[in-house]
Amino acid sequence: MCAIVGVINSKDAAKTAYYGLFSMQHRGQEASGISSSYNHQIKTIKNRGLVTEVFNSASFEILQGQMAIGHNRYSTAGSDSVLDAQPVSAKYSLGEISIVHNGNLINKYEVRERLIEDGAIFQSNMDTENILHLIAKSKKENLQDRIIEALGQIVGAYCLLILSRSKMFVVRDPYGVRPLSIGRLKDGGYIVASESCAFDLVGATFVRDVAPGEMIVFEEGKSAFKSIELFEAKDPRLCAFEYIYFARPDSMIDGKNVYQIRKKLGEILADKSSCKADFVVPVPDSGVPAALGYAARSKIPFEMAIVRNHYVGRTFIEPTQEMRNLKVKLKLNPMSSVLKGKSIVVIDDSIVRGTTSKKIVELLRNAGAKEIHMKIAAPEIKHPCRYGIDTPSYEELISARMDAREVCKFIGADSLEFLSIDELTQGLGNERKYSLVSFDGDYFIS
Amino acid sequence: MCAIVGVINSKDAAKTAYYGLFSMQHRGQEASGISSSYNHQIKTIKNRGLVTEVFNSASFEILQGQMAIGHNRYSTAGSDSVLDAQPVSAKYSLGEISIVHNGNLINKYEVRERLIEDGAIFQSNMDTENILHLIAKSKKENLQDRIIEALGQIVGAYCLLILSRSKMFVVRDPYGVRPLSIGRLKDGGYIVASESCAFDLVGATFVRDVAPGEMIVFEEGKSAFKSIELFEAKDPRLCAFEYIYFARPDSMIDGKNVYQIRKKLGEILADKSSCKADFVVPVPDSGVPAALGYAARSKIPFEMAIVRNHYVGRTFIEPTQEMRNLKVKLKLNPMSSVLKGKSIVVIDDSIVRGTTSKKIVELLRNAGAKEIHMKIAAPEIKHPCRYGIDTPSYEELISARMDAREVCKFIGADSLEFLSIDELTQGLGNERKYSLVSFDGDYFIS
Amino acid sequence: MCAIVGVINSKDAAKTAYYGLFSMQHRGQEASGISSSYNHQIKTIKNRGLVTEVFNSASFEILQGQMAIGHNRYSTAGSDSVLDAQPVSAKYSLGEISIVHNGNLINKYEVRERLIEDGAIFQSNMDTENILHLIAKSKKENLQDRIIEALGQIVGAYCLLILSRSKMFVVRDPYGVRPLSIGRLKDGGYIVASESCAFDLVGATFVRDVAPGEMIVFEEGKSAFKSIELFEAKDPRLCAFEYIYFARPDSMIDGKNVYQIRKKLGEILADKSSCKADFVVPVPDSGVPAALGYAARSKIPFEMAIVRNHYVGRTFIEPTQEMRNLKVKLKLNPMSSVLKGKSIVVIDDSIVRGTTSKKIVELLRNAGAKEIHMKIAAPEIKHPCRYGIDTPSYEELISARMDAREVCKFIGADSLEFLSIDELTQGLGNERKYSLVSFDGDYFIS
Amino acid sequence: MCAIVGVINSKDAAKTAYYGLFSMQHRGQEASGISSSYNHQIKTIKNRGLVTEVFNSASFEILQGQMAIGHNRYSTAGSDSVLDAQPVSAKYSLGEISIVHNGNLINKYEVRERLIEDGAIFQSNMDTENILHLIAKSKKENLQDRIIEALGQIVGAYCLLILSRSKMFVVRDPYGVRPLSIGRLKDGGYIVASESCAFDLVGATFVRDVAPGEMIVFEEGKSAFKSIELFEAKDPRLCAFEYIYFARPDSMIDGKNVYQIRKKLGEILADKSSCKADFVVPVPDSGVPAALGYAARSKIPFEMAIVRNHYVGRTFIEPTQEMRNLKVKLKLNPMSSVLKGKSIVVIDDSIVRGTTSKKIVELLRNAGAKEIHMKIAAPEIKHPCRYGIDTPSYEELISARMDAREVCKFIGADSLEFLSIDELTQGLGNERKYSLVSFDGDYFIS
Repeated sequence: MCAIVGVINSKDAAKTAYYGLFSMQHRGQEASGISSSYNHQIKTIKNRGLVTEVFNSASFEILQGQMAIGHNRYSTAGSDSVLDAQPVSAKYSLGEISIVHNGNLINKYEVRERLIEDGAIFQSNMDTENILHLIAKSKKENLQDRIIEALGQIVGAYCLLILSRSKMFVVRDPYGVRPLSIGRLKDGGYIVASESCAFDLVGATFVRDVAPGEMIVFEEGKSAFKSIELFEAKDPRLCAFEYIYFARPDSMIDGKNVYQIRKKLGEILADKSSCKADFVVPVPDSGVPAALGYAARSKIPFEMAIVRNHYVGRTFIEPTQEMRNLKVKLKLNPMSSVLKGKSIVVIDDSIVRGTTSKKIVELLRNAGAKEIHMKIAAPEIKHPCRYGIDTPSYEELISARMDAREVCKFIGADSLEFLSIDELTQGLGNERKYSLVSFDGDYFIS
Repeated sequence: MCAIVGVINSKDAAKTAYYGLFSMQHRGQEASGISSSYNHQIKTIKNRGLVTEVFNSASFEILQGQMAIGHNRYSTAGSDSVLDAQPVSAKYSLGEISIVHNGNLINKYEVRERLIEDGAIFQSNMDTENILHLIAKSKKENLQDRIIEALGQIVGAYCLLILSRSKMFVVRDPYGVRPLSIGRLKDGGYIVASESCAFDLVGATFVRDVAPGEMIVFEEGKSAFKSIELFEAKDPRLCAFEYIYFARPDSMIDGKNVYQIRKKLGEILADKSSCKADFVVPVPDSGVPAALGYAARSKIPFEMAIVRNHYVGRTFIEPTQEMRNLKVKLKLNPMSSVLKGKSIVVIDDSIVRGTTSKKIVELLRNAGAKEIHMKIAAPEIKHPCRYGIDTPSYEELISARMDAREVCKFIGADSLEFLSIDELTQGLGNERKYSLVSFDGDYFIS
Repeated sequence: MCAIVGVINSKDAAKTAYYGLFSMQHRGQEASGISSSYNHQIKTIKNRGLVTEVFNSASFEILQGQMAIGHNRYSTAGSDSVLDAQPVSAKYSLGEISIVHNGNLINKYEVRERLIEDGAIFQSNMDTENILHLIAKSKKENLQDRIIEALGQIVGAYCLLILSRSKMFVVRDPYGVRPLSIGRLKDGGYIVASESCAFDLVGATFVRDVAPGEMIVFEEGKSAFKSIELFEAKDPRLCAFEYIYFARPDSMIDGKNVYQIRKKLGEILADKSSCKADFVVPVPDSGVPAALGYAARSKIPFEMAIVRNHYVGRTFIEPTQEMRNLKVKLKLNPMSSVLKGKSIVVIDDSIVRGTTSKKIVELLRNAGAKEIHMKIAAPEIKHPCRYGIDTPSYEELISARMDAREVCKFIGADSLEFLSIDELTQGLGNERKYSLVSFDGDYFIS
Repeated sequence: MCAIVGVINSKDAAKTAYYGLFSMQHRGQEASGISSSYNHQIKTIKNRGLVTEVFNSASFEILQGQMAIGHNRYSTAGSDSVLDAQPVSAKYSLGEISIVHNGNLINKYEVRERLIEDGAIFQSNMDTENILHLIAKSKKENLQDRIIEALGQIVGAYCLLILSRSKMFVVRDPYGVRPLSIGRLKDGGYIVASESCAFDLVGATFVRDVAPGEMIVFEEGKSAFKSIELFEAKDPRLCAFEYIYFARPDSMIDGKNVYQIRKKLGEILADKSSCKADFVVPVPDSGVPAALGYAARSKIPFEMAIVRNHYVGRTFIEPTQEMRNLKVKLKLNPMSSVLKGKSIVVIDDSIVRGTTSKKIVELLRNAGAKEIHMKIAAPEIKHPCRYGIDTPSYEELISARMDAREVCKFIGADSLEFLSIDELTQGLGNERKYSLVSFDGDYFIS
């Protein structure tokens, strides 16, 4: 998970990219970076930290011009260096390029091994370097053909933005696993972003999604863009997790509003089985829409009985002995004056390891909840994702080891229900397929 | 508005104070500080920034001992110096003390002028320095009598914690305008805090509120505390704004859960007048509980149609020309896919200058809302508060200059309704009086 | 030891003060601060760190106006807080003042105790607060009379600058223990500084020293200044250590060039006793001038055989076990290719605890020096200074416990010689007396 | 100009490398970095700033193990990014390596172009990346053979350290232009460093210089090292500037003490021509040894009449209008009390652009010097260096455009003398040749 943004043919492109990254901060808080192309030179500023920490006014005196790409990096194990921040910029045989990338290459180790055997060096752990090498090694005469050749060797679920001195190339993988949309800026320029919430902040209007397998070529000074079918059309398989918990509720992903999808999933949960309760309580923030849907459909009153503290920073002082469950309590506080003696339906977006759910149930019990019926607005996660989401291995996934009844016991709830995979796809709209690997283990890209 | 916390007779008191301040970060983000008393010395660490920025592990090697007080400072004009952070510690004739303070002294200029004429020096702009001077100048033989004498000269709405080398004094003003509660820690120590949400995080149990006009004396090593009626009993007048928008919804203020009060105010709004609408939309986060109440009572569906971005930092890059209403848009994004063509009731907690409401209405219109009925879960703010809330002057308060109809026109809504003062007090519970100066101009302390 | 600077009636006074402080960084590296008076307001910026770390361009948008005072703080035990940085600014009965101070008040505890008993509070450990309080408590009608009254109650060795909204008061103690000079800026304004090297950098010309016991009053907009004999004339007693090692060699202190005085002391050392040696080696940097004097007079060649590393920062990584004498070695490296098998005269400015000298001798021996004759360009330090120098207590002063022969044995030199007190005063010029308390224990101020 | 250090088979190798870099801070202040090899992994920490700013205690919890290499980067135009800091670490076909490099590759553009055409990407502007690529592309079976093959394609003046998971390779170019020495640590390990002053600080003993064209291979756990004649023996051509001003005076470079060489050059200057003067004045610090030599030989007294301020930091406030020559004055202050009315010989190490010399002469005149005879302990710099020193282009080199008489007029001195090239080589010792390109334009590597 990461956020990418590209801006072209717009004044102060890097500033617009900055605001785009700001609105997609939820997709990655570890590092941030922007490259801009100006006066035949690509300049890059990147560092660890939030968007507002990495950039200041002086940054935009360096990042001039009408073309820029940017990236927010999600925290993953082992990526603690600024060298693992994006964009990655390099000089190569046709000049200079800069790349940002969201997603995961399935055959990265093979490609990397082959490149390394062929004499390449890798200075980071990022997939992005693979793509750079493939482009650099191609014998094709222009960048576009090289990108095509390079991506022909790559298998994976990804979105890419490639900035040269005069063009911006936009690519979405053949299955369209990761989202990517095009917006139009008020001054006639374009913005491309992982989520459409970026368009709202910068005042852009949604044009359309980039199609799976499509390459779009923007050129400096040209108001039209060119679309190329890079890969043969396949059944699109957008990652269901974008709807379940990645994306901001106000984003439109492949034509659907995330908030409304989440509400719908809550309604399906409500339809699924009756359950007497005093009220419905979401685990905030991501459980809120599904809980609203559940409450509306089940006619059980909705209460924001768990309060979330949004000031959570990065470093914490070791707690005193008396403070149990600190990590969850720093974020979530159930209100006993609302919960005392009540039967509740708790709506969360998913269960991964089960440890957080266990702590939430414990906090709810301590707050006096009498009965706790946990409803999850997603199916059981039984398989690790390999397409760009940082899910843990089989050993750590609780639903890979236990059935729902055992999980219920582990987390200490009175009942536990998940959506079935069919119910999920029904909620997402049956008309198209989704990437559901975490649920069904169908690794369709390999 | 500020947060104060005190911890006594508990291991690692400063750490507990740290977590208390962390949970009350919403009451002040400008500066933070903690003093601890240990080994006959008071040590203080304070600085500008969030709680998690001011303190690190090394801080707690300095802030040892079983007694500590802490403070979060709210940003007010002209207080840009670390010298204006609290606690304020000083050596005086009986040894050493440290003070934190939440609220406002009405007669501070008179007291300050008198003290200055009498030879005192003031190194900051804080009321706290006044109190320190009055204590230092008193001829009484012990600190307790001096505090009593000092506070006898002070008129205002405040809560105070005073730490000496072996005691902690807790004071709430005669009207109890600002909130203050006592909790019990698991190891037998006590915690005193502006809001009870601090107790939840550190695992303390609520004991009781400090009574208006009460002084409580905690002593190192003594498990009991002493209560003194410092001021004659008056009708208590808790600041209504604590319920309206200051406090965290999960706090209990003077025995009442803030979230439930806010929901109640929403219900009263719904009872007040019928209004056809497709759904009820809160201005998040503080408008959510009232909107839930309104929706439940009016049977109009509830939608979280405005999404809030919680990553708002402190410094922003100047926007491009294309970006209007940036400051509001950085926080709030209405979803057009939910709002398009709809009639909505929008619930907000209050209107101060009217400028933010105007921008919200504009954003809602741009998102396609057809009819916008604004409902405010508070009365019109017609008077500046002088009791500790940073409200602007008469000229800037829109309701001091315009009636509701004119305000409605200014903000561009289709209709606008406020609670009446009676409805507000009904919602808060008629059994006791509140500080309502911002609404009725009854400056009962002067 | 500290540095103070004042600038008046000069454009960008704070900037000139900044450069003055920069050139006097050697007098204090712990903290730095500047106050300026402009538009009837005194603004202060101060913090821990070097001059170049505390201030940036933005500082001088705040520190406007034609009047400014500044301070560099020397690191002393227990002063680790920004609250102990100067200037100290305060509001008092006649308005607002800011004070900087260099030196030591002998009766500070008595004065502080009296003030505290009288109801004052002290927020720092600085003498400066005493003076502020005395001024604030005075009943005199104007600041000048109050300063006079305040200083009448104070006994000590100090220089003071006091900035009000329209005046700058300059005071030197009756004995003139600490140095203070007046310079004239090119635009007609004045600068007052601890050392004249500040004048050189800002292009000011030396006017004269402030006389012992003199108060000088500068007024905004007036080109002339007023001199007042604040204290009756006494025999001046400038601190001999200013010449021995505090001051920069290029400063003129009370009419004498520090470098030339140090050279003279080296000549006297050479006259004192014959000593065969291959060459004369200074302990850099402060031993260099005396070593040049010694070499010139003794006709023994001079060699810079110990090299000093000037990049010494503040925090160091704990060394490995193999690295002995690290703290001295980080600064000083004797060259074995010069020293091997040689007899040398080593010139240092003083011996305080003896530990550094012992390590230097050990390093010289390891570098191959055959005979090491240590010559100290000062007498034995037998008494702690109480007049502003941070010398340790009797127990730590090696010459308070041992005679020169024993010290020689302790440090491992082949011979050791100090100047006698008479020789020192001869070198300083017999025509006037000096503060020699560290050598003779004559505490003339008490 | 840069500093490199390598440590092997020694406990806490990275810490020893840290102290080595600290002692060579004068060779580069822009950026610093260390890689260590431990547990089959290479870890790197690098950043902009001084050694003491880049590393802290936590750094050495990451940089574990018995093998480490480090680098100080000299500030050059355009290298403002952390991406241009060294070491450069990369994964390649034989595993992982890290490289540090001091010097300049003559054919870097050709090599880079060829590599790029062949499909390589370059992420920085550093020569080091060239070498990494050549090693990665080699088909040889082991790293040693690859390094040999890679360096066979490179022409230049350089020293290299290459760290693999179990070995450290040390290479000095065929002419030995840049210095590199081997020392032995007390625990039996080895240290390799640009200058021997690094050995003194860490308690290592000098073993020998790395020979021109030599490759040395250290292996983890093996106490002996292997020497390989990488390139055919050529006449060694050590860079004369190391003696003239780069190296610390306490370093031994190719068997000669830098301080003594500088003194010798001063003596030759004195022999060259008689010149009546009151005294000899060095431009500190680098002019001091030559001035001592000049004074000793000419019997003209030596005076440290220009005082240097060592607290010069990186950012400066724009000066006021009154302050001329600020940049030079911040560092150097001539003492008028010593200089007034005197005829002086001023000794400096070199003249590059002439602008600094002009300002020094102006400052000396303002301080009252009557006659100023400038003597330069080096020949005229008539050609840009291409072998690792950051000298400017022909247009900026004053001696490329003017003869000595014209330069003298330009800087405003009464006379000006340089060493001839023969005199320089005589001073350096005739027995071997030196790199003198800046003086004679003999670009012997091309």
